Amino acid sequence: MSAPQRPPKPYLVRTGIDAILAELAEGDAVPSERELAVRFAVSRETVRQALHELLVEGRIERRGRGTVVAQPKLVQPLSLRSYTEGARERGRTPGRLLVTWEDIAASPDMADALAISIGAPVMHLERVLLADGKRIGLESTYLPKCRFAGFADTFDPATSLYAAINAAGVEFGSAVERIETVLPSPREAALLETTTAMPMLLLNRRSVDTGGVPIELVRALFRGDRVAFEAVLT
Amino acid sequence: MSAPQRPPKPYLVRTGIDAILAELAEGDAVPSERELAVRFAVSRETVRQALHELLVEGRIERRGRGTVVAQPKLVQPLSLRSYTEGARERGRTPGRLLVTWEDIAASPDMADALAISIGAPVMHLERVLLADGKRIGLESTYLPKCRFAGFADTFDPATSLYAAINAAGVEFGSAVERIETVLPSPREAALLETTTAMPMLLLNRRSVDTGGVPIELVRALFRGDRVAFEAVLT
Repeated sequence: MSAPQRPPKPYLVRTGIDAILAELAEGDAVPSERELAVRFAVSRETVRQALHELLVEGRIERRGRGTVVAQPKLVQPLSLRSYTEGARERGRTPGRLLVTWEDIAASPDMADALAISIGAPVMHLERVLLADGKRIGLESTYLPKCRFAGFADTFDPATSLYAAINAAGVEFGSAVERIETVLPSPREAALLETTTAMPMLLLNRRSVDTGGVPIELVRALFRGDRVAFEAVLT
Repeated sequence: MSAPQRPPKPYLVRTGIDAILAELAEGDAVPSERELAVRFAVSRETVRQALHELLVEGRIERRGRGTVVAQPKLVQPLSLRSYTEGARERGRTPGRLLVTWEDIAASPDMADALAISIGAPVMHLERVLLADGKRIGLESTYLPKCRFAGFADTFDPATSLYAAINAAGVEFGSAVERIETVLPSPREAALLETTTAMPMLLLNRRSVDTGGVPIELVRALFRGDRVAFEAVLT
């Protein structure tokens, strides 16, 4: 067993700030970098690192020229259900902003994953996901056009895509989801109103129907400071 | 539907580098920042951003003074099974380095989660997780001492903890796992041989046995450039 050691300064500053935040409510102003450096008798660089950690963790956020205590993260269940249901279950109001809606030709990988021919038309829908009006994610969905051709006329991109897929008589059977962390490209960062230094949770999902026929490929990027995922394992 | 737009420079540089990497094998040298800036006729800053993205995604890694194509990420299944089994299934050799092994007193939150008294002894085991000898994660496990007191004498911290728990006659029933992305503290970055700028996947897990009695709390930090998680949803 290891002998007890004197905790390093960054640790003491971080736990000190954690204690300050524990006394504050959502939206309250956080003491400035300079103030915290004086209080803990450390360099501003040490405080800056701790505040950056807290920003990435979504405990604090920039508001105007100051920093405030952030709203808790939206915890999304890892499940076959839609973003809409997951957000509502946690008491948040879901929303979507259409960014791109186009037909593309299936690449070899895409054709293989969707069980269609190479070059066959694929509907690409790219939307910013909102929770209570805040930008939390950027989702690209790829659907085989042959199966969902009617969507071009009937689907309202401000509404739930999963509800529309279900309404079209297609039932989700299973999905394989891969979760990683990445940094956003400048375009993605701009669409999510953050910087290219903010770590993201990247989800790649392939869903099939109850008969095993592919429904969609999804690439969803979630702001790491605003979203967490939860899985129940049995 | 949106009109086609001219792709921005960072996008062209990124896809250009992706195409170069596609032609290279694991361990091959990646062209230098300067070389790439000349080739794509962009600033070194634009190339630097693209290389940083690729570094965080684990597509490339620093080796000595150069940069090489990285080994693919270890994809860990999100399941009740142990890290050991997950790594072996993917053809990697798992290993562990003991960092901390101590008894601590249960905090109120910990006592509540483990269904023990506040202040009751908890065994804290902190280990670096290895895959093929490379540091990929840092795992802290908290076990109620009353249930696993014998481990102090019998458990070899270089081996699978889950195997030891099973050997003690305890069967895992279910777990709730929360997945986030965070930046490591300086201490965590040092233990994982990376920097505080490398995004991590953070897993917090609470496992209970088949009777619903808590077994463990786990806080595991995985290097985002070396690990991804995969879930099968039904």
